[in-house]
Amino acid sequence: MTGATGLLTADLIGVAVFAASGASAGVAKRLDLFGVAFVGFVAALGGGILRDLVIGAVPPLAFADWRYPITAAAASVAVFWLHPHVNRLRRTVLVLDAAGLGLLTVTSTLKALDAGVPDVGSCLIGMLAAIGGGLARDLLTGEIPVLLQRDIYAIAALGGAILVTVLHEFGLTGPVPVGVSAVLITGVRLLALYRRWSAPIAMP
Amino acid sequence: MTGATGLLTADLIGVAVFAASGASAGVAKRLDLFGVAFVGFVAALGGGILRDLVIGAVPPLAFADWRYPITAAAASVAVFWLHPHVNRLRRTVLVLDAAGLGLLTVTSTLKALDAGVPDVGSCLIGMLAAIGGGLARDLLTGEIPVLLQRDIYAIAALGGAILVTVLHEFGLTGPVPVGVSAVLITGVRLLALYRRWSAPIAMP
Amino acid sequence: MTGATGLLTADLIGVAVFAASGASAGVAKRLDLFGVAFVGFVAALGGGILRDLVIGAVPPLAFADWRYPITAAAASVAVFWLHPHVNRLRRTVLVLDAAGLGLLTVTSTLKALDAGVPDVGSCLIGMLAAIGGGLARDLLTGEIPVLLQRDIYAIAALGGAILVTVLHEFGLTGPVPVGVSAVLITGVRLLALYRRWSAPIAMP
Repeated sequence: MTGATGLLTADLIGVAVFAASGASAGVAKRLDLFGVAFVGFVAALGGGILRDLVIGAVPPLAFADWRYPITAAAASVAVFWLHPHVNRLRRTVLVLDAAGLGLLTVTSTLKALDAGVPDVGSCLIGMLAAIGGGLARDLLTGEIPVLLQRDIYAIAALGGAILVTVLHEFGLTGPVPVGVSAVLITGVRLLALYRRWSAPIAMP
Repeated sequence: MTGATGLLTADLIGVAVFAASGASAGVAKRLDLFGVAFVGFVAALGGGILRDLVIGAVPPLAFADWRYPITAAAASVAVFWLHPHVNRLRRTVLVLDAAGLGLLTVTSTLKALDAGVPDVGSCLIGMLAAIGGGLARDLLTGEIPVLLQRDIYAIAALGGAILVTVLHEFGLTGPVPVGVSAVLITGVRLLALYRRWSAPIAMP
Repeated sequence: MTGATGLLTADLIGVAVFAASGASAGVAKRLDLFGVAFVGFVAALGGGILRDLVIGAVPPLAFADWRYPITAAAASVAVFWLHPHVNRLRRTVLVLDAAGLGLLTVTSTLKALDAGVPDVGSCLIGMLAAIGGGLARDLLTGEIPVLLQRDIYAIAALGGAILVTVLHEFGLTGPVPVGVSAVLITGVRLLALYRRWSAPIAMP
C-alpha cells in the first residue's frame, strides 16, 4: 500500500464513520431511507464541501471523486439496516469518530495552507471542515448542535489545526509531524470523553 | 417562442411554484411580509445557488439574472395576499411543484456535466439543486425537512438525474431525451403522491 | 487616521457588535465557551462569508484577514464573561447593531457591484450579507429567525442597498453618498425600533 493509497483509505474510513453518525441520528428521528442516507452524506461530506468552497477548490471533492459519496451512502444504508448492532458498537464508533476528527482537521488545515490561505484562516478552515458535518447533521434533525453545548470536540480540532499550522511554518509537513498531530487531536478527544471533561458554561 | 425562450419560461414557472410553496410555509408560521418573501426566495432559488457555487458559476443565476429573484418575489407576495385561495389550489400547486422538480433536476444535472463535473457528482448536484430549496424552506421555518421523513420526492429526482447522466454518456442531450427525463421525474413524483408510496423507515 | 483605517475600524466595530449579539444568544441557550464563541463568529462573519462566496472572492475576508475572526472571538469571549453587564447595555447594543447593519449593507452592495454583479443581484447580496449572520445565529440556537417574524430590519437593509445601487449608477460612490446611505439605514432601523413599526402579517 503506497502512501497515497493509505491516506485515501484513512480518508474513506473517516467518511464512513461520520456518515454512520449522521445515519444513526436520522434513524433515531424516524427519517426514511432517503433521509437517513442524506443526513449521512451531509455529516460525512458537508464539512469538506464547505472547506473546498471557501478555498476555491470547485467542484468540491465530494462531487469530484465518486468514492467519497459512494462510501458515505454505503455506510448510511448499512446503518439503516443494522442500526441495533451499531448501537452495541457505540464505543467503537466514538473511537473511530475521534480518529476521523483528527484526520479531517489535519488534512483540511494543510489544504487551506497549500491554497494560500493565511495562518489564522487556515486554522479556522481546518476546524470548520472537521466539525461542519456534525453541525449540519444536528441542524437537519432539529437539534441545537451538541458540539456547541458541551464536550471537548471542536476545541481539540482547533488546537490540532494550530499545531499543524505552526509545524507548517517550520517546514514540518511530512507524514510524521502530520500523523502525530492527528493522533494528538484524537487522543485529546478520547481523553476528554473518558474523563468527562467539558468546556465552561457562563454563570447565569 | 424560440427554444431558449421556452426553456426560460419553464424555468421561471418552476421558480414561481417553488417560491409559492416557500411563501405558504412562511404564512403558516405567521412570518411577516418580508419573512414570507424571504422564505419564498430561498425555496425557489436556494438549490440553484448551491448548484452554481459548487460548479464554480459565480455569481449564481439568482443574482446574475434579475428575472429569477423578481419572479420569486412576485410569487411570494401574491401568496401573501391570496393565500386562502392558494390553499384551495393545493392540488394544482402539487402538480406544478412536481413539474418544477423534474425540470430543475434535469437542467441542473446537465449544467454540472457541462461544467466538467464527473458523472456521480453531477447526479448528486442535479438532485441537490432540485431539493435544496425545500430543505432550506423547512429549516428556516423550524421543521425537520419533510422530504427526509417520507414521500418519494428526492428519490424521483435522483433517479431522473441518473437517467440524464446515462443519456448524456450516449450523447443524447437534445430536447427530446431531456424533456422525457423531466416528464418521467414529474410522473413518478405524481404517481407516488396518488398511490401514497413512501420510502421505508428503519425497524425500531 | 486615514480613510482606509477609518473604514477598517468601522468594519471591525460592526463585527464586534454582531459577534456580541450572537454570543448573547449562545449564553442564553446555555452553550459552552466554544459554542458561544462559534455562534458569535457565525453571527459576525457568516453574512460576509456568504457574500464573498457568491461574488467569487475566495478565500472570504473572514479567513483572509485575521483581524476579523480575532475581533469576533474577542467580543464573544468578553460577552461570555461579562454577559450580565451586556444585558444592562441592551440599548447600546441595539444602536450599535443598527450601525453595523447600515455599514455592512453599504460596503457589501458596493463590493458586489465592483465584482460586476448586476444591479438587482447586488442589492440582494448587500442585504443578505447584512442579515445572513443574524439568520445563522438564530438557526444555530434553534429559533425561527426573528428577522423573518417581525421588525423592520432586513427591509431597511434592502432599501439602503437599492439606494446605494442607484447612487452607483450615477457615479456617486464617494464617502459622502456612501456614508449618508449607511446612516439612513441605521436611522430607519432605529426609528422602527423606537416607534415599534413592523411589517404586515398575512390575514389568517
